[in-house]
Amino acid sequence: MTAARTGRLYGVGTGPGDPELLTLKAVRALGQADVVAHFAKRGHAGNARKIVDAHWRPEMIELPLAYPVTTEIDKQHDDYKAAIRAFYEESARAVEAHLVEGRTVAVLSEGDPLFYGSYMHLHVRLAHRFPTEVIPGVTAMSGCWSASGLPIVQGDDVLTVLPGTLAEDRLARRLADTDSAVIMKLGRNLPKVRRALTAAGKLNGAVYVERGTMANAMAMPLADKPDDEAPYFALVLVPGWEGRP
Amino acid sequence: MTAARTGRLYGVGTGPGDPELLTLKAVRALGQADVVAHFAKRGHAGNARKIVDAHWRPEMIELPLAYPVTTEIDKQHDDYKAAIRAFYEESARAVEAHLVEGRTVAVLSEGDPLFYGSYMHLHVRLAHRFPTEVIPGVTAMSGCWSASGLPIVQGDDVLTVLPGTLAEDRLARRLADTDSAVIMKLGRNLPKVRRALTAAGKLNGAVYVERGTMANAMAMPLADKPDDEAPYFALVLVPGWEGRP
Repeated sequence: MTAARTGRLYGVGTGPGDPELLTLKAVRALGQADVVAHFAKRGHAGNARKIVDAHWRPEMIELPLAYPVTTEIDKQHDDYKAAIRAFYEESARAVEAHLVEGRTVAVLSEGDPLFYGSYMHLHVRLAHRFPTEVIPGVTAMSGCWSASGLPIVQGDDVLTVLPGTLAEDRLARRLADTDSAVIMKLGRNLPKVRRALTAAGKLNGAVYVERGTMANAMAMPLADKPDDEAPYFALVLVPGWEGRP
Repeated sequence: MTAARTGRLYGVGTGPGDPELLTLKAVRALGQADVVAHFAKRGHAGNARKIVDAHWRPEMIELPLAYPVTTEIDKQHDDYKAAIRAFYEESARAVEAHLVEGRTVAVLSEGDPLFYGSYMHLHVRLAHRFPTEVIPGVTAMSGCWSASGLPIVQGDDVLTVLPGTLAEDRLARRLADTDSAVIMKLGRNLPKVRRALTAAGKLNGAVYVERGTMANAMAMPLADKPDDEAPYFALVLVPGWEGRP
Protein backbone atom coordinates (compact mmCIF):
# COMPACT_ATOMS: atom_id res chain seq x y z
CA MET A 1 0.00 0.00 0.00
CA THR A 2 1.34 3.36 -1.01
CA ALA A 3 -1.96 5.22 -0.81
CA ALA A 4 -1.30 6.57 2.68
CA ARG A 5 1.87 8.21 1.43
CA THR A 6 0.36 9.96 -1.61
CA GLY A 7 0.67 13.72 -1.49
CA ARG A 8 -1.95 16.30 -2.29
CA LEU A 9 -1.86 18.74 -5.21
CA TYR A 10 -3.13 22.30 -4.77
CA GLY A 11 -3.55 24.75 -7.63
CA VAL A 12 -3.38 27.99 -5.68
CA GLY A 13 -4.66 31.26 -7.15
CA THR A 14 -2.58 34.07 -5.65
CA GLY A 15 -4.75 36.92 -6.95
CA PRO A 16 -3.67 39.87 -9.06
CA GLY A 17 -0.65 41.16 -7.14
CA ASP A 18 -1.57 42.71 -3.79
CA PRO A 19 -0.60 40.08 -1.16
CA GLU A 20 -3.73 41.01 0.81
CA LEU A 21 -5.84 39.67 -2.07
CA LEU A 22 -4.82 36.12 -1.22
CA THR A 23 -7.81 34.12 0.06
CA LEU A 24 -7.90 32.51 3.49
CA LYS A 25 -7.98 29.17 1.68
CA ALA A 26 -4.81 29.95 -0.27
CA VAL A 27 -3.06 30.88 2.98
CA ARG A 28 -4.20 27.63 4.58
CA ALA A 29 -2.95 25.58 1.61
CA LEU A 30 0.42 27.34 1.83
CA GLY A 31 0.52 26.45 5.52
CA GLN A 32 0.12 22.77 4.60
CA ALA A 33 2.47 22.73 1.63
CA ASP A 34 5.76 20.85 1.77
CA VAL A 35 6.66 22.03 -1.73
CA VAL A 36 5.76 25.30 -3.47
CA ALA A 37 6.09 25.27 -7.27
CA HIS A 38 5.83 28.35 -9.45
CA PHE A 39 6.25 29.17 -13.14
CA ALA A 40 8.61 31.97 -14.02
CA LYS A 41 10.96 33.22 -16.65
CA ARG A 42 14.47 31.88 -16.17
CA GLY A 43 16.35 34.07 -13.68
CA HIS A 44 13.21 35.85 -12.41
CA ALA A 45 11.42 35.13 -9.14
CA GLY A 46 7.98 35.58 -10.71
CA ASN A 47 5.11 37.64 -9.30
CA ALA A 48 3.25 34.71 -7.74
CA ARG A 49 6.31 33.83 -5.63
CA LYS A 50 6.58 37.44 -4.41
CA ILE A 51 2.87 37.57 -3.52
CA VAL A 52 3.20 34.67 -1.05
CA ASP A 53 6.44 35.89 0.50
CA ALA A 54 4.88 36.65 3.91
CA HIS A 55 3.68 33.03 4.12
CA TRP A 56 7.02 31.41 3.31
CA ARG A 57 8.40 28.94 5.87
CA PRO A 58 12.11 28.02 5.99
CA GLU A 59 11.33 24.31 5.66
CA MET A 60 9.41 24.76 2.39
CA ILE A 61 10.94 23.21 -0.71
CA GLU A 62 10.88 25.70 -3.58
CA LEU A 63 10.34 24.25 -7.05
CA PRO A 64 10.81 26.95 -9.70
CA LEU A 65 9.55 25.90 -13.13
CA ALA A 66 11.50 28.09 -15.53
CA TYR A 67 10.11 28.52 -19.04
CA PRO A 68 12.58 27.64 -21.76
CA VAL A 69 13.98 30.75 -23.45
CA THR A 70 11.75 30.98 -26.51
CA THR A 71 11.43 34.66 -27.34
CA GLU A 72 13.26 34.21 -30.61
CA ILE A 73 10.94 31.43 -31.86
CA ASP A 74 7.53 31.98 -33.52
CA LYS A 75 4.80 30.61 -31.22
CA GLN A 76 3.04 28.93 -34.13
CA HIS A 77 6.23 27.13 -35.14
CA ASP A 78 6.44 23.38 -34.53
CA ASP A 79 9.80 23.79 -32.75
CA TYR A 80 8.20 26.14 -30.20
CA LYS A 81 5.23 23.82 -29.70
CA ALA A 82 7.51 20.84 -29.16
CA ALA A 83 9.75 22.76 -26.72
CA ILE A 84 6.86 24.07 -24.66
CA ARG A 85 5.17 20.67 -24.55
CA ALA A 86 8.41 19.04 -23.38
CA PHE A 87 8.70 21.73 -20.71
CA TYR A 88 5.19 21.03 -19.37
CA GLU A 89 5.85 17.26 -19.39
CA GLU A 90 9.09 17.76 -17.49
CA SER A 91 7.39 20.15 -15.03
CA ALA A 92 4.61 17.64 -14.38
CA ARG A 93 7.21 14.94 -13.69
CA ALA A 94 9.03 17.22 -11.24
CA VAL A 95 5.79 17.85 -9.31
CA GLU A 96 4.83 14.18 -9.52
CA ALA A 97 8.16 13.14 -7.97
CA HIS A 98 7.18 15.01 -4.80
CA LEU A 99 3.58 13.78 -4.80
CA VAL A 100 4.61 10.11 -4.95
CA GLU A 101 6.86 10.74 -1.94
CA GLY A 102 3.78 11.87 0.00
CA ARG A 103 4.54 15.57 -0.10
CA THR A 104 1.83 18.19 -0.49
CA VAL A 105 2.60 20.44 -3.45
CA ALA A 106 1.12 23.93 -3.91
CA VAL A 107 1.44 25.21 -7.47
CA LEU A 108 1.14 28.99 -7.46
CA SER A 109 -0.83 30.72 -10.19
CA GLU A 110 -1.17 34.48 -10.52
CA GLY A 111 -4.82 35.47 -10.65
CA ASP A 112 -7.06 32.41 -11.02
CA PRO A 113 -5.45 29.03 -11.85
CA LEU A 114 -7.91 27.86 -14.52
CA PHE A 115 -8.30 31.28 -16.17
CA TYR A 116 -5.36 31.53 -18.62
CA GLY A 117 -3.03 30.08 -15.95
CA SER A 118 0.00 27.86 -16.61
CA TYR A 119 -1.15 25.63 -13.74
CA MET A 120 -3.71 24.02 -16.02
CA HIS A 121 -0.92 22.30 -17.97
CA LEU A 122 -0.03 20.45 -14.75
CA HIS A 123 -3.68 19.96 -13.80
CA VAL A 124 -4.56 18.00 -16.95
CA ARG A 125 -1.49 15.78 -16.46
CA LEU A 126 -1.83 15.10 -12.71
CA ALA A 127 -5.33 15.78 -11.33
CA HIS A 128 -6.73 12.39 -12.40
CA ARG A 129 -3.95 10.58 -10.55
CA PHE A 130 -3.54 12.50 -7.27
CA PRO A 131 -5.94 14.12 -4.78
CA THR A 132 -6.23 17.63 -6.18
CA GLU A 133 -7.90 20.85 -5.18
CA VAL A 134 -8.04 24.06 -7.21
CA ILE A 135 -8.30 27.21 -5.08
CA PRO A 136 -9.75 30.03 -7.18
CA GLY A 137 -8.24 33.49 -6.98
CA VAL A 138 -9.14 37.08 -7.77
CA THR A 139 -8.36 37.63 -11.47
CA ALA A 140 -6.11 40.40 -12.77
CA MET A 141 -9.10 41.96 -14.53
CA SER A 142 -11.13 42.13 -11.27
CA GLY A 143 -8.12 43.70 -9.59
CA CYS A 144 -7.90 46.30 -12.37
CA TRP A 145 -11.53 47.40 -12.49
CA SER A 146 -11.68 47.49 -8.67
CA ALA A 147 -8.51 49.59 -8.36
CA SER A 148 -10.02 51.96 -10.93
CA GLY A 149 -13.46 51.96 -9.27
CA LEU A 150 -14.96 51.12 -12.64
CA PRO A 151 -18.26 49.16 -12.69
CA ILE A 152 -17.77 46.71 -15.56
CA VAL A 153 -21.06 44.81 -16.07
CA GLN A 154 -24.57 45.01 -14.68
CA GLY A 155 -27.92 43.36 -15.32
CA ASP A 156 -28.07 41.63 -18.71
CA ASP A 157 -24.71 42.96 -20.00
CA VAL A 158 -22.51 40.67 -22.10
CA LEU A 159 -18.80 40.68 -21.19
CA THR A 160 -16.19 39.56 -23.72
CA VAL A 161 -12.60 38.82 -22.72
CA LEU A 162 -10.31 39.24 -25.73
CA PRO A 163 -6.58 38.69 -26.17
CA GLY A 164 -4.94 41.64 -27.93
CA THR A 165 -3.18 39.09 -30.14
CA LEU A 166 -6.34 38.60 -32.28
CA ALA A 167 -6.42 40.02 -35.80
CA GLU A 168 -7.64 43.61 -36.04
CA ASP A 169 -10.86 42.84 -37.93
CA ARG A 170 -11.81 40.07 -35.49
CA LEU A 171 -11.13 42.36 -32.54
CA ALA A 172 -13.23 45.15 -34.07
CA ARG A 173 -16.13 42.82 -34.88
CA ARG A 174 -16.24 41.36 -31.37
CA LEU A 175 -15.87 44.76 -29.71
CA ALA A 176 -18.82 46.07 -31.71
CA ASP A 177 -20.90 43.06 -30.61
CA THR A 178 -20.52 43.26 -26.81
CA ASP A 179 -21.68 45.53 -23.99
CA SER A 180 -18.41 45.33 -22.13
CA ALA A 181 -14.93 44.04 -22.86
CA VAL A 182 -11.57 43.31 -21.31
CA ILE A 183 -8.61 43.27 -23.69
CA MET A 184 -5.55 41.45 -22.39
CA LYS A 185 -2.03 40.81 -23.70
CA LEU A 186 -1.47 44.37 -24.87
CA GLY A 187 2.27 45.04 -25.27
CA ARG A 188 3.02 45.75 -28.91
CA ASN A 189 -0.63 45.00 -29.80
CA LEU A 190 -1.80 48.34 -28.38
CA PRO A 191 -1.83 50.34 -31.68
CA LYS A 192 -3.94 47.57 -33.27
CA VAL A 193 -6.27 47.46 -30.24
CA ARG A 194 -6.70 51.22 -30.44
CA ARG A 195 -7.65 51.00 -34.14
CA ALA A 196 -10.10 48.15 -33.46
CA LEU A 197 -11.77 50.11 -30.64
CA THR A 198 -12.07 53.14 -32.92
CA ALA A 199 -13.60 51.01 -35.70
CA ALA A 200 -16.09 49.58 -33.20
CA GLY A 201 -17.00 53.08 -31.97
CA LYS A 202 -15.76 52.25 -28.47
CA LEU A 203 -12.52 54.18 -28.04
CA ASN A 204 -14.33 56.70 -25.86
CA GLY A 205 -15.08 54.92 -22.62
CA ALA A 206 -12.09 52.56 -22.93
CA VAL A 207 -9.74 52.72 -19.95
CA TYR A 208 -6.07 51.72 -20.01
CA VAL A 209 -4.78 50.10 -16.78
CA GLU A 210 -1.15 49.33 -16.00
CA ARG A 211 0.20 47.31 -13.05
CA GLY A 212 -3.38 46.49 -11.89
CA THR A 213 -3.32 46.06 -8.12
CA MET A 214 0.32 46.94 -7.55
CA ALA A 215 1.18 49.91 -5.32
CA ASN A 216 2.06 51.97 -8.40
CA ALA A 217 -1.07 51.16 -10.45
CA MET A 218 -2.06 53.64 -13.14
CA ALA A 219 -5.33 54.06 -15.06
CA MET A 220 -6.33 56.61 -17.70
CA PRO A 221 -8.80 56.97 -20.56
CA LEU A 222 -7.12 55.21 -23.50
CA ALA A 223 -8.03 58.19 -25.72
CA ASP A 224 -5.84 60.37 -23.48
CA LYS A 225 -2.81 58.07 -23.56
CA PRO A 226 -0.30 59.93 -25.73
CA ASP A 227 1.86 56.95 -26.74
CA ASP A 228 1.47 53.29 -27.66
CA GLU A 229 3.94 51.93 -25.11
CA ALA A 230 2.38 49.19 -22.96
CA PRO A 231 3.67 46.26 -20.95
CA TYR A 232 2.31 42.85 -21.96
CA PHE A 233 0.23 42.55 -18.80
CA ALA A 234 -1.51 45.94 -19.10
CA LEU A 235 -5.26 45.76 -19.78
CA VAL A 236 -7.89 47.80 -21.57
CA LEU A 237 -11.32 47.87 -19.92
CA VAL A 238 -14.49 48.78 -21.81
CA PRO A 239 -17.20 49.21 -19.16
CA GLY A 240 -20.81 48.27 -19.88
CA TRP A 241 -23.84 49.31 -17.87
CA GLU A 242 -25.30 51.75 -20.41
CA GLY A 243 -28.36 52.40 -18.25
CA ARG A 244 -26.45 53.59 -15.19
CA PRO A 245 -27.98 56.50 -13.30
CA MET B 1 -14.27 71.21 9.59
CA THR B 2 -16.06 67.93 9.34
CA ALA B 3 -13.43 66.14 7.23
CA ALA B 4 -11.85 64.36 10.19
CA ARG B 5 -15.19 62.77 10.98
CA THR B 6 -15.94 61.47 7.47
CA GLY B 7 -16.28 57.71 7.33
CA ARG B 8 -14.82 55.33 4.79
CA LEU B 9 -16.80 53.24 2.29
CA TYR B 10 -15.68 49.71 1.42
CA GLY B 11 -17.23 47.63 -1.35
CA VAL B 12 -16.28 44.17 -0.12
CA GLY B 13 -16.32 41.17 -2.44
CA THR B 14 -17.17 38.12 -0.33
CA GLY B 15 -16.36 35.53 -3.01
CA PRO B 16 -18.64 32.80 -4.34
CA GLY B 17 -19.88 31.16 -1.15
CA ASP B 18 -17.15 29.28 0.71
CA PRO B 19 -16.18 31.54 3.67
CA GLU B 20 -12.54 30.50 3.15
CA LEU B 21 -12.61 32.26 -0.22
CA LEU B 22 -12.73 35.65 1.50
CA THR B 23 -9.52 37.59 0.88
CA LEU B 24 -7.26 38.80 3.70
CA LYS B 25 -8.17 42.33 2.62
CA ALA B 26 -11.90 41.66 2.97
CA VAL B 27 -11.31 40.27 6.46
CA ARG B 28 -9.28 43.35 7.41
CA ALA B 29 -12.02 45.69 6.10
CA LEU B 30 -14.61 43.80 8.14
CA GLY B 31 -12.36 44.21 11.18
CA GLN B 32 -12.46 47.99 10.66
CA ALA B 33 -16.15 48.31 9.80
CA ASP B 34 -18.56 50.02 12.16
CA VAL B 35 -21.48 49.23 9.86
CA VAL B 36 -21.99 46.23 7.56
CA ALA B 37 -24.58 46.70 4.82
CA HIS B 38 -25.86 43.90 2.58
CA PHE B 39 -28.49 43.53 -0.11
CA ALA B 40 -31.03 40.76 0.34
CA LYS B 41 -34.55 39.72 -0.41
CA ARG B 42 -36.97 40.84 2.29
CA GLY B 43 -36.99 38.29 5.10
CA HIS B 44 -33.81 36.52 3.95
CA ALA B 45 -30.35 36.92 5.48
CA GLY B 46 -28.64 36.78 2.08
CA ASN B 47 -25.59 34.71 1.16
CA ALA B 48 -23.04 37.50 1.59
CA ARG B 49 -24.11 37.99 5.21
CA LYS B 50 -23.72 34.24 5.87
CA ILE B 51 -20.27 34.16 4.28
CA VAL B 52 -18.88 36.73 6.76
CA ASP B 53 -20.52 35.22 9.82
CA ALA B 54 -17.22 34.12 11.42
CA HIS B 55 -15.99 37.72 11.28
CA TRP B 56 -19.04 39.29 12.89
CA ARG B 57 -18.44 41.39 16.02
CA PRO B 58 -21.24 42.16 18.50
CA GLU B 59 -20.68 45.91 18.22
CA MET B 60 -21.19 45.93 14.44
CA ILE B 61 -24.26 47.77 13.16
CA GLU B 62 -26.09 45.62 10.59
CA LEU B 63 -27.75 47.51 7.74
CA PRO B 64 -29.85 45.12 5.63
CA LEU B 65 -30.94 46.62 2.32
CA ALA B 66 -34.07 44.67 1.41
CA TYR B 67 -35.16 44.70 -2.24
CA PRO B 68 -38.74 45.81 -2.72
CA VAL B 69 -41.04 42.89 -3.55
CA THR B 70 -41.19 43.13 -7.31
CA THR B 71 -41.60 39.58 -8.60
CA GLU B 72 -45.07 40.36 -9.97
CA ILE B 73 -43.85 43.35 -12.04
CA ASP B 74 -42.23 43.15 -15.50
CA LYS B 75 -38.61 44.30 -15.23
CA GLN B 76 -38.96 46.40 -18.39
CA HIS B 77 -42.03 48.16 -16.98
CA ASP B 78 -41.63 51.81 -15.94
CA ASP B 79 -43.19 51.05 -12.53
CA TYR B 80 -40.46 48.49 -11.81
CA LYS B 81 -37.71 50.82 -12.98
CA ALA B 82 -39.05 53.65 -10.79
CA ALA B 83 -39.39 51.36 -7.76
CA ILE B 84 -35.87 49.92 -8.08
CA ARG B 85 -34.35 53.35 -8.64
CA ALA B 86 -36.11 54.70 -5.55
CA PHE B 87 -34.80 51.69 -3.62
CA TYR B 88 -31.18 52.38 -4.63
CA GLU B 89 -31.55 56.08 -3.82
CA GLU B 90 -32.94 55.22 -0.40
CA SER B 91 -30.18 52.64 0.19
CA ALA B 92 -27.49 55.17 -0.72
CA ARG B 93 -29.01 57.67 1.72
CA ALA B 94 -29.02 55.04 4.48
CA VAL B 95 -25.31 54.31 3.91
CA GLU B 96 -24.51 58.02 3.59
CA ALA B 97 -26.14 58.75 6.97
CA HIS B 98 -23.49 56.54 8.62
CA LEU B 99 -20.60 57.92 6.54
CA VAL B 100 -21.35 61.53 7.49
CA GLU B 101 -21.29 60.47 11.15
CA GLY B 102 -17.72 59.23 10.61
CA ARG B 103 -18.53 55.51 10.59
CA THR B 104 -16.74 53.08 8.29
CA VAL B 105 -19.28 51.16 6.20
CA ALA B 106 -18.55 47.83 4.52
CA VAL B 107 -21.05 46.96 1.80
CA LEU B 108 -20.97 43.22 1.17
CA SER B 109 -21.19 41.91 -2.36
CA GLU B 110 -21.28 38.24 -3.28
CA GLY B 111 -18.53 37.41 -5.76
CA ASP B 112 -16.86 40.58 -7.05
CA PRO B 113 -18.50 43.97 -6.30
CA LEU B 114 -18.16 45.56 -9.77
CA PHE B 115 -19.02 42.37 -11.71
CA TYR B 116 -22.85 42.31 -11.81
CA GLY B 117 -22.98 43.32 -8.12
CA SER B 118 -25.68 45.49 -6.52
CA TYR B 119 -22.92 47.39 -4.71
CA MET B 120 -22.22 49.38 -7.88
CA HIS B 121 -25.56 51.19 -7.49
CA LEU B 122 -24.21 52.61 -4.22
CA HIS B 123 -20.71 53.14 -5.66
CA VAL B 124 -21.88 55.49 -8.43
CA ARG B 125 -23.90 57.50 -5.89
CA LEU B 126 -21.29 57.75 -3.10
CA ALA B 127 -17.72 57.04 -4.28
CA HIS B 128 -17.15 60.60 -5.57
CA ARG B 129 -18.12 62.07 -2.20
CA PHE B 130 -16.48 59.75 0.37
CA PRO B 131 -13.12 57.95 0.64
CA THR B 132 -13.92 54.64 -1.05
CA GLU B 133 -12.12 51.39 -1.67
CA VAL B 134 -13.39 48.46 -3.71
CA ILE B 135 -12.02 45.09 -2.60
CA PRO B 136 -12.30 42.60 -5.45
CA GLY B 137 -13.52 39.09 -4.78
CA VAL B 138 -13.42 35.65 -6.37
CA THR B 139 -16.34 35.51 -8.84
CA ALA B 140 -19.03 32.83 -8.81
CA MET B 141 -17.82 31.61 -12.20
CA SER B 142 -14.23 31.15 -10.94
CA GLY B 143 -15.64 29.26 -7.96
CA CYS B 144 -17.62 27.00 -10.29
CA TRP B 145 -14.87 26.09 -12.75
CA SER B 146 -12.41 25.54 -9.90
CA ALA B 147 -14.78 23.29 -7.94
CA SER B 148 -15.29 21.30 -11.16
CA GLY B 149 -11.55 21.26 -11.99
CA LEU B 150 -12.43 22.56 -15.46
CA PRO B 151 -9.78 24.64 -17.28
CA ILE B 152 -11.85 27.38 -18.92
CA VAL B 153 -9.51 29.47 -21.11
CA GLN B 154 -5.89 29.24 -22.23
CA GLY B 155 -3.58 31.09 -24.60
CA ASP B 156 -5.48 33.22 -27.11
CA ASP B 157 -8.96 31.94 -26.19
CA VAL B 158 -11.90 34.35 -26.20
CA LEU B 159 -14.26 34.08 -23.22
CA THR B 160 -17.83 35.38 -23.43
CA VAL B 161 -19.99 35.85 -20.35
CA LEU B 162 -23.67 35.69 -21.33
CA PRO B 163 -26.85 36.14 -19.31
CA GLY B 164 -29.35 33.36 -20.02
CA THR B 165 -31.99 36.07 -20.35
CA LEU B 166 -30.81 36.94 -23.91
CA ALA B 167 -32.99 35.97 -26.89
CA GLU B 168 -32.32 32.48 -28.24
CA ASP B 169 -30.91 33.60 -31.60
CA ARG B 170 -28.55 36.10 -29.97
CA LEU B 171 -27.36 33.46 -27.52
CA ALA B 172 -26.76 30.95 -30.34
CA ARG B 173 -24.89 33.48 -32.49
CA ARG B 174 -22.59 34.51 -29.64
CA LEU B 175 -21.98 30.93 -28.52
CA ALA B 176 -20.96 30.00 -32.08
CA ASP B 177 -18.50 32.92 -32.13
CA THR B 178 -16.49 32.25 -28.96
CA ASP B 179 -13.91 29.72 -27.75
CA SER B 180 -15.34 29.57 -24.26
CA ALA B 181 -18.49 30.77 -22.52
CA VAL B 182 -20.12 31.18 -19.16
CA ILE B 183 -23.92 31.38 -19.17
CA MET B 184 -25.45 32.91 -16.06
CA LYS B 185 -29.01 33.54 -14.84
CA LEU B 186 -30.30 30.14 -15.84
CA GLY B 187 -33.52 29.39 -13.94
CA ARG B 188 -36.40 29.08 -16.39
CA ASN B 189 -34.03 30.07 -19.23
CA LEU B 190 -32.36 26.64 -19.25
CA PRO B 191 -34.47 25.06 -22.08
CA LYS B 192 -33.67 28.06 -24.29
CA VAL B 193 -29.98 27.92 -23.34
CA ARG B 194 -29.91 24.22 -24.22
CA ARG B 195 -31.42 24.91 -27.66
CA ALA B 196 -28.97 27.77 -28.29
CA LEU B 197 -26.00 25.56 -27.36
CA THR B 198 -27.30 22.85 -29.69
CA ALA B 199 -27.72 25.34 -32.54
CA ALA B 200 -24.16 26.57 -31.95
CA GLY B 201 -22.82 23.00 -31.99
CA LYS B 202 -21.62 23.35 -28.39
CA LEU B 203 -23.97 21.25 -26.30
CA ASN B 204 -21.31 18.56 -26.00
CA GLY B 205 -18.66 19.96 -23.72
CA ALA B 206 -21.10 22.22 -21.84
CA VAL B 207 -21.12 21.60 -18.10
CA TYR B 208 -23.99 22.45 -15.76
CA VAL B 209 -22.94 23.62 -12.26
CA GLU B 210 -25.29 24.13 -9.33
CA ARG B 211 -24.43 25.76 -5.97
CA GLY B 212 -20.87 26.58 -7.14
CA THR B 213 -18.60 26.55 -4.12
CA MET B 214 -21.14 25.45 -1.53
CA ALA B 215 -20.55 22.21 0.36
CA ASN B 216 -23.23 20.51 -1.75
CA ALA B 217 -22.01 21.68 -5.16
CA MET B 218 -22.99 19.58 -8.17
CA ALA B 219 -21.62 19.51 -11.72
CA MET B 220 -22.57 17.34 -14.70
CA PRO B 221 -22.41 17.44 -18.50
CA LEU B 222 -25.46 19.47 -19.55
CA ALA B 223 -26.23 16.82 -22.19
CA ASP B 224 -26.67 14.29 -19.35
CA LYS B 225 -29.00 16.46 -17.28
CA PRO B 226 -32.39 14.76 -17.64
CA ASP B 227 -34.58 17.74 -16.76
CA ASP B 228 -34.70 21.51 -17.27
CA GLU B 229 -35.01 22.45 -13.59
CA ALA B 230 -32.36 24.97 -12.55
CA PRO B 231 -32.01 27.58 -9.85
CA TYR B 232 -31.44 31.14 -11.05
CA PHE B 233 -27.82 31.15 -9.85
CA ALA B 234 -26.78 27.91 -11.55
CA LEU B 235 -24.24 28.30 -14.38
CA VAL B 236 -23.37 26.60 -17.64
CA LEU B 237 -19.64 26.48 -18.47
CA VAL B 238 -18.37 25.93 -22.02
CA PRO B 239 -14.62 25.31 -21.67
CA GLY B 240 -12.21 26.47 -24.33
CA TRP B 241 -8.59 25.33 -24.79
CA GLU B 242 -9.13 23.27 -27.95
CA GLY B 243 -5.42 22.48 -28.23
CA ARG B 244 -5.07 20.89 -24.82
CA PRO B 245 -2.84 17.81 -24.62
